[in-house]
Amino acid sequence: MSLTSSTPSDSARSASLAARSLAVLPVHSRNNALTAIHDALLSAKPTILDANAKDMSLATTASKDGSLSASLVKRLDLSRPGKYEDMLQGILDVRGLPDPVGQVSLRTLLDDGLELERVSCPIGVLLIIFEARPEVIANIAALAIKSGNAAILKGGKESSHSFEAISRVISEALEKTEVPNAAIQLVKTRDVIDELLQLDRYIDLVIPRGGNELVRFVKEHTRVPVLGHADGLCSVYLHADADVEIAKRVVVDSKCDYPAACNSAETLLVHEEVLGTVLPTVAEALLQRGVSLLCDARSKEVLREKLPSDKAVLLQDTGETDYDTEFLDLKIAVKTVPAVGAANGTAHTSDPSLDLAISHINAHSSGHTDSIVTQSKEAAEYFMSAVDAAGVYWNASTRFADGMRYGFGTEVGISTNKIHSRGPVGLEGLTIYKYKIRGSGQVAGEYGAGKKAYKHEKLDL
Amino acid sequence: MSLTSSTPSDSARSASLAARSLAVLPVHSRNNALTAIHDALLSAKPTILDANAKDMSLATTASKDGSLSASLVKRLDLSRPGKYEDMLQGILDVRGLPDPVGQVSLRTLLDDGLELERVSCPIGVLLIIFEARPEVIANIAALAIKSGNAAILKGGKESSHSFEAISRVISEALEKTEVPNAAIQLVKTRDVIDELLQLDRYIDLVIPRGGNELVRFVKEHTRVPVLGHADGLCSVYLHADADVEIAKRVVVDSKCDYPAACNSAETLLVHEEVLGTVLPTVAEALLQRGVSLLCDARSKEVLREKLPSDKAVLLQDTGETDYDTEFLDLKIAVKTVPAVGAANGTAHTSDPSLDLAISHINAHSSGHTDSIVTQSKEAAEYFMSAVDAAGVYWNASTRFADGMRYGFGTEVGISTNKIHSRGPVGLEGLTIYKYKIRGSGQVAGEYGAGKKAYKHEKLDL
Repeated sequence: MSLTSSTPSDSARSASLAARSLAVLPVHSRNNALTAIHDALLSAKPTILDANAKDMSLATTASKDGSLSASLVKRLDLSRPGKYEDMLQGILDVRGLPDPVGQVSLRTLLDDGLELERVSCPIGVLLIIFEARPEVIANIAALAIKSGNAAILKGGKESSHSFEAISRVISEALEKTEVPNAAIQLVKTRDVIDELLQLDRYIDLVIPRGGNELVRFVKEHTRVPVLGHADGLCSVYLHADADVEIAKRVVVDSKCDYPAACNSAETLLVHEEVLGTVLPTVAEALLQRGVSLLCDARSKEVLREKLPSDKAVLLQDTGETDYDTEFLDLKIAVKTVPAVGAANGTAHTSDPSLDLAISHINAHSSGHTDSIVTQSKEAAEYFMSAVDAAGVYWNASTRFADGMRYGFGTEVGISTNKIHSRGPVGLEGLTIYKYKIRGSGQVAGEYGAGKKAYKHEKLDL
Repeated sequence: MSLTSSTPSDSARSASLAARSLAVLPVHSRNNALTAIHDALLSAKPTILDANAKDMSLATTASKDGSLSASLVKRLDLSRPGKYEDMLQGILDVRGLPDPVGQVSLRTLLDDGLELERVSCPIGVLLIIFEARPEVIANIAALAIKSGNAAILKGGKESSHSFEAISRVISEALEKTEVPNAAIQLVKTRDVIDELLQLDRYIDLVIPRGGNELVRFVKEHTRVPVLGHADGLCSVYLHADADVEIAKRVVVDSKCDYPAACNSAETLLVHEEVLGTVLPTVAEALLQRGVSLLCDARSKEVLREKLPSDKAVLLQDTGETDYDTEFLDLKIAVKTVPAVGAANGTAHTSDPSLDLAISHINAHSSGHTDSIVTQSKEAAEYFMSAVDAAGVYWNASTRFADGMRYGFGTEVGISTNKIHSRGPVGLEGLTIYKYKIRGSGQVAGEYGAGKKAYKHEKLDL
């Protein structure tokens, strides 16, 4: 790993060359590098937390005068209980996972002595641009090395002290390993993002980790494929037969567990029939946790009847854009899904209300994670098939959308892309595959109409 | 399927809505639609070939006055022996393949009663822009419908008669099926490509089928992910121990079987030690087939000694750009790979010449398909690991890079992308996945340091 002050183009070119060596490095060499990083970060914890404290103090000041959002400050804090340990554990988890490189996903006998094989391999060079969340450096370095990819890291100015401290530690740790020096590059030079984004000759994938604006900026300024999500607009839908206790647990956790996270719920859809039965309990629990409820007319009307007056008075109205807003805050937009009788001619569902909820989600959610609360397996399965999102859950909190929670060790980010990787992206998401053919002089001209025929026999993996 | 004259934006929006219905349509309904298309195209063969003859006659004229390339004319021709039958067979092959939707690729028990599942699903809306090759419409329609994706097709003016005839037939055939009318849209309006490429709100993937210029234009004018390849610069490398007969067969087929194809070889790398033993036989066979050999100084020198003088006189010199040129013609650039003694300190190969060949390929080939001819399993495996291409072959012709030959039924194209799909793209390449979680009210806040732990038990698929 090098802390580089060279030009973006030199960095990218040397990363690209390093990626070739890394791609053929055996897994034990890659794992040894992870051990080295882990051990070094463990010993350097006090130094790194000191550096992080400097960033926090600057950020807290900036937050007070309004130039930095409170949620960004929260993401920056490495001293939150368990955060440093989670970062370290993530490295060990990644080390313990099976090698994602060299996995065979298809084998076909094309003809006698002519075998086709599809094998996973690294993508090449990743460019990771991030704002806060300094622990991302460790996650990304671990995932990149294990998956055989080179990575260029560009951190934001808010986390610059933490970033430098962590990268110095990683850099020294890697010097004693077989991972080529240029495989993980830390670009410290300022104002080079535009230039980096033009280097599609060397860079294979950009992963922006940060707010919507960063992601949008990146998407608009590069031809390199971008992996990530701009918005995390997640919804929870309470169906007509939702269990009140499950509804309360799922909605409260989805909204309140960590409101600044992309997998927090921003919209609560409620079937008309449970406005007076399930919603009041859910609403009361949310109000108790300090959540502002932005309600449509129908849900507000029912809630005002059902809630104690000191609670009812807290209800607010939805504005025009509330169903399209990622609040990242203790706010949730409530919408009533009308009870509609079974329609004639709808082939694949017998419940038009469910279709209305799904249509709302497909039109307004960001394809991140959406959850249904229902006792009906049929409704749940239909919802999970028809909602077009990276995560579709039944009776579970949207907050489960996370690489660590999914068992991926850690993640480079959560993708709402509909190509390559979707949802939390771990090791598998950082690989692609190549097709190998092993023959003994076979040529295509021998096959075809009136000539030899392909066997296309599926072989065991 | 509709032959639409509506605005690109209306087309895309209705395709996007149709994609939602198509995504939940059972596989038998999708297969029935393929049967209908196949049968209709079979009966309409004479009509369609008549239309194609009109395109061919215009194209042949344009080719004579130089405004259209000969290779494009060749691609346009639906009457080439077996081409129409291949197109029909491709539809049946796709119908016979397993449903790519709903395939479970990961199942993990997160905790008791909390299951994570990764399931394949359609991508959404595909935009396919193509120049010649009218049979592509049928391939794409079949692959799109089977994989549950909507598709917007925009054909080039060279194939407009064939295109209209085929689409009319498909359109009528689909009217009697459950596939929504707007799921396959044929845009006839001219000059709308720019506008279509801006519709990233509705379109999930663009697949340009055509020459380098089209692909480059598309890549530079859209934020929608692009699947395809600009160049098909394939190489064959003859290693020091290459078998002369295998070398001849593989090189001749790679170059001559169909020179206008993207999977034809453009560069021949030859280990110095076999310049005088293997190369002369290969070169003579190529010259006999009318191939121009553009040689570097060393290979030309040896060949002039070894070849009969009437052959030797045909040898040409390489120009500066020949190793970076996709000739699409009966031309091949020959380069000598110096014999270098075993180096000290190269950890993962004992043959520096092999590394030189690999470096040349990684620097000059386009990541499409590259082949090594060698008797050494070790050299072949190292080559296949280290060459960064969609297809890496051992003793086999580069011409095998093809969806039909790989057993995918047909293909939407060959991708040199390093994300999502690489190589020939069939049904699997047109799907993505979503994560489903089935629970009973579990919330993320219950898990973590000092709280419940995730089980992360791998479950059978």
